[in-house]
Amino acid sequence: MTEERTWTAALVVIGDEILSGRTQDKNVAKVATWLNEQGIRLAEVRIVPDDLDRIGETVNALRATHDYLFTTGGIGPTHDDITVDAIAAAFGVPVIVHPQARAILEDYYRDRSSGLNPARLRMARTPQGAELLPNPYSGAPGIKMENVYILAGVPNIAASMLEALTGKLAGGRPVVSVTVGARAAESDVADMLRETEAAHPGVAIGSYPFFKDGGYGSNFVIRSEDGELAKSCGGALSERLREAGYEPVEGGI
Amino acid sequence: MTEERTWTAALVVIGDEILSGRTQDKNVAKVATWLNEQGIRLAEVRIVPDDLDRIGETVNALRATHDYLFTTGGIGPTHDDITVDAIAAAFGVPVIVHPQARAILEDYYRDRSSGLNPARLRMARTPQGAELLPNPYSGAPGIKMENVYILAGVPNIAASMLEALTGKLAGGRPVVSVTVGARAAESDVADMLRETEAAHPGVAIGSYPFFKDGGYGSNFVIRSEDGELAKSCGGALSERLREAGYEPVEGGI
Repeated sequence: MTEERTWTAALVVIGDEILSGRTQDKNVAKVATWLNEQGIRLAEVRIVPDDLDRIGETVNALRATHDYLFTTGGIGPTHDDITVDAIAAAFGVPVIVHPQARAILEDYYRDRSSGLNPARLRMARTPQGAELLPNPYSGAPGIKMENVYILAGVPNIAASMLEALTGKLAGGRPVVSVTVGARAAESDVADMLRETEAAHPGVAIGSYPFFKDGGYGSNFVIRSEDGELAKSCGGALSERLREAGYEPVEGGI
Repeated sequence: MTEERTWTAALVVIGDEILSGRTQDKNVAKVATWLNEQGIRLAEVRIVPDDLDRIGETVNALRATHDYLFTTGGIGPTHDDITVDAIAAAFGVPVIVHPQARAILEDYYRDRSSGLNPARLRMARTPQGAELLPNPYSGAPGIKMENVYILAGVPNIAASMLEALTGKLAGGRPVVSVTVGARAAESDVADMLRETEAAHPGVAIGSYPFFKDGGYGSNFVIRSEDGELAKSCGGALSERLREAGYEPVEGGI
């Protein structure tokens, strides 16, 4: 087995609506799952308010320390959409109207009422030097600035931008997860978990309790970049749980 | 009106299961809403992996820059629960078995199979010098270490710890939100939003598009620490939207 490097990404979720509790974020889990499929590990998420300086500082801190940085939110047509301005300032470049983005929006809004009005044209603004990311869902493109990928905040739009990026980023091996569920209190099998993890170098076992159908149980999640190793560790743990008399819950909950 | 200071908090969500995409976080929205009710602004969230150094660095960075720091996750009975160790190291103090926590757990597990076994006793460990936070839901307490509030990751347990803390933290005025919904594309009313915000110093207006019942619309969320100001701004915006011919959506979506 050759030693492979680990590719990492960070995600910055931009939006007062998340920090106020009004809106339940749905992008973290989606971006995380998609990144893993690309062989890239999501190493950190930060959720920051609609504030130029806070966005800029956070982007500069994280783009330097990860292979990729993704952002969601703040690229719409209204005054509270300031992500492009913040990231241009973070890179020390001006904001321009990107000719290709303008052409995409002219085409998209040609037959709609009020056409490409000034608010919609805001969505053609990018940091100077940026490239565009296709938005198959609703026209207005995402933006790539060096290793920073700027996505929409609306989950369906963010997902369509990721879909269009699938397979295009350099990455390593995905982490394979095997879930073993059992009607066991995690505190009753803590030693078994630690010993099983120790006996399988290269795996990490997470333990997550659940309450379902009137009874307690736990999901034990075995993660490894080596899929065969994860499977054999899952098999070993299932066997030990069965020997100890715990009822299995196939595939976990 | 007297000038009041703004109280801020940060939240650190600890857990590989969130960063892998396996588990959808539910604590951010809950903590955010609860903090606002206490008159404390959630200013930043960071999601970090189950890693001693990463947890420690993050806690030290954020506890110094906010009035309060909350953490969720990693205080259970298994080997992957390392939050207490990480935070003790961050404070430069040893981990102890807290006598009062031990007594709570002895009582809680007295009549249960295997009683207070070594794994469960792990949940009595705290950084030296910490106080306990009541857990009305499932016994094992949360932990307060100076301005750091260490909560469970399981949403029901975290919520019960917050419930028990209600009204006990110093804070300012809650931010009042007024939502105005309309069958309007946000890009058609961007000028109206900016002008209405500018005419009401002390409010921030956020604009969030939706697609529902076969049609587009937007929620305009007006936030202010001055509830009367938020309401009058909401009234003014509703009036302008009605004059411009947009169908209202009462209370937003």
